[in-house]
Amino acid sequence: MESTPVKLTQTVQKGGCAAKVSAIELRKILSQVQFPPTNSSLLVDGSLFDDAAIFKVNDQLALVQTLDFFTPILDSAYTFGKVACANALSDVYAMGGTPQTAMAILAFPTATLSNEIIAEVLQGACDLLAEVNVPLVGGHSIDDDTLKFGLSVTGYVHPEKIWSNNKAQIGDLLILTKGLGTGTLTAALKRGEVSESEISEAIASMTQVNACIDLLRPELADAIHAATDITGFGLLGHGMQMAKASHKTFFINASDVPVLPQAKSFLEKGFLTKAHRSNRDYVSDAVDIDQLDEISKLLLFDPQTSGGLLLSVQKEKAELVLAALKTRFKSAAFIGQVVAAQTSAVVVK
Amino acid sequence: MESTPVKLTQTVQKGGCAAKVSAIELRKILSQVQFPPTNSSLLVDGSLFDDAAIFKVNDQLALVQTLDFFTPILDSAYTFGKVACANALSDVYAMGGTPQTAMAILAFPTATLSNEIIAEVLQGACDLLAEVNVPLVGGHSIDDDTLKFGLSVTGYVHPEKIWSNNKAQIGDLLILTKGLGTGTLTAALKRGEVSESEISEAIASMTQVNACIDLLRPELADAIHAATDITGFGLLGHGMQMAKASHKTFFINASDVPVLPQAKSFLEKGFLTKAHRSNRDYVSDAVDIDQLDEISKLLLFDPQTSGGLLLSVQKEKAELVLAALKTRFKSAAFIGQVVAAQTSAVVVK
Repeated sequence: MESTPVKLTQTVQKGGCAAKVSAIELRKILSQVQFPPTNSSLLVDGSLFDDAAIFKVNDQLALVQTLDFFTPILDSAYTFGKVACANALSDVYAMGGTPQTAMAILAFPTATLSNEIIAEVLQGACDLLAEVNVPLVGGHSIDDDTLKFGLSVTGYVHPEKIWSNNKAQIGDLLILTKGLGTGTLTAALKRGEVSESEISEAIASMTQVNACIDLLRPELADAIHAATDITGFGLLGHGMQMAKASHKTFFINASDVPVLPQAKSFLEKGFLTKAHRSNRDYVSDAVDIDQLDEISKLLLFDPQTSGGLLLSVQKEKAELVLAALKTRFKSAAFIGQVVAAQTSAVVVK
Repeated sequence: MESTPVKLTQTVQKGGCAAKVSAIELRKILSQVQFPPTNSSLLVDGSLFDDAAIFKVNDQLALVQTLDFFTPILDSAYTFGKVACANALSDVYAMGGTPQTAMAILAFPTATLSNEIIAEVLQGACDLLAEVNVPLVGGHSIDDDTLKFGLSVTGYVHPEKIWSNNKAQIGDLLILTKGLGTGTLTAALKRGEVSESEISEAIASMTQVNACIDLLRPELADAIHAATDITGFGLLGHGMQMAKASHKTFFINASDVPVLPQAKSFLEKGFLTKAHRSNRDYVSDAVDIDQLDEISKLLLFDPQTSGGLLLSVQKEKAELVLAALKTRFKSAAFIGQVVAAQTSAVVVK
């Protein structure tokens, strides 16, 4: 099911997580809304619209709930479905959870996109769900001007084994599990400057699910103090959120950050998205990146679609954790460490 | 938060549940997809993309999961948010469940719709969630050409107290809890032929949540053998699905079906949606409505947004159930009965 005559990326203005509403705009909107009361079962409500929520069922079980959807970032419908699925599952993995059920979110122009293309999108997602033993239990479809696809995912986690984003500890080492650069690479793809086969490593990265916990024996899983997944707000946006939530500062060594092949060269050529700018604005007051050249900065602003996990790991166990992760995530690397809170939430050198 | 200078219905081509992909098209697409395996915890997978799913956690608890979103059917952003929320919660109530958590699904044009309008949509939903004690635990927003809003909702239900759509029994009486006609009325609104204040009863109906179970003492709740909610496929579409799933025929008396004020007159004036035709096509082989006049037929095809519940109720308890429901749903009425399967799944006289 790989034939796609229509170039899907040409049917939308912006693709993938780069189409997220900017974090600044979102906060402005949410500040005007009076939310319904929470209750004691809600263990994690995250920042609304950002992360997964965790709802306690009983002392042994909590539900991790998340949803994510976006426009095509690839022309191959089947692969786009896989990427959207991996991206949606990611928030559950980022909380230390295991996905249990998924529902499809589908919007597409019935007049201009064939049933076959929509079926390919769904098949891509279904094949990835089958790999991780998650049934597709339902969903909702709507006739719309442009294709959008994603999933609402529910996972299980033990209430005392949650990887939240606010428990990074001084001395922890920071691990990033995937290379950066999907924003600029898919921007280049959309403009026809590169083919999908030429960015195969980025596509392989985006279709890889962020399952980590099955690689880690319990003592290593417990060594992960905090985690988040890197998506539309980029490494600096999500890293800043995690550092601030933990009331710490993250020191990152730019030269250690894994990068997808060609990402820097496409940033040099100017293949940018709106999110490169809005992500820069989002973190401007809270990060110190003055020592970096412009391309290194842009890479840290690059909006990731189905990006990797950023893990804050107890120093003594960090080598063992990284070794275990590298059996599945070959680009996984130490990128920095956690220190006491300074003026900037993230400092990159 | 009621001021809305932009006429939201003018920003979209089709509104509400009328914008659902037609049931026929959806089935064509889904027939091409190989779904991931289900498992024994999945008690109800429904028809994919139609209904809520039920996933068993343990012998006392199952999760009801559903999601729904659509384009504006009203110009008032706040009220649209309420309608979208009531509509999304409905699938949980239709399974006999009680909503526990909700996540927002939000797509909107950041360039042309102000933050205030988006905040109003969210506030409408949040106020309704507060009424039913459901926290908004997260969500996802996307920059898109047209406004879409909805929720992914998770509820609780006892695994042995599920109201599925396949257990209607011969002799049951059929109750519909809300009047029909939101499709034609909102079509007239979109064309400027009527104001929101002139269809206030329809709007009150659409913003009313379908909570029933709290009105029924246990023996009356147990008397409900099957249930579904009436949305985009109309009374005949959803009624047909329930009759077929139960391997029964539903006899409906057209004159008993509750109707919203002015709905028939707007059908007579020709205020139709694409769904009026696609719903007719969807049921054409399975319903016998030859005795009805055209307007009565159109009413039964009318796509409902946040429509009522269709309940199949044990005959002996039906009067007590209806009396209890009418304390909240003043239009609730007996509309027919369940008989042994005949050639047509639904017969209307």
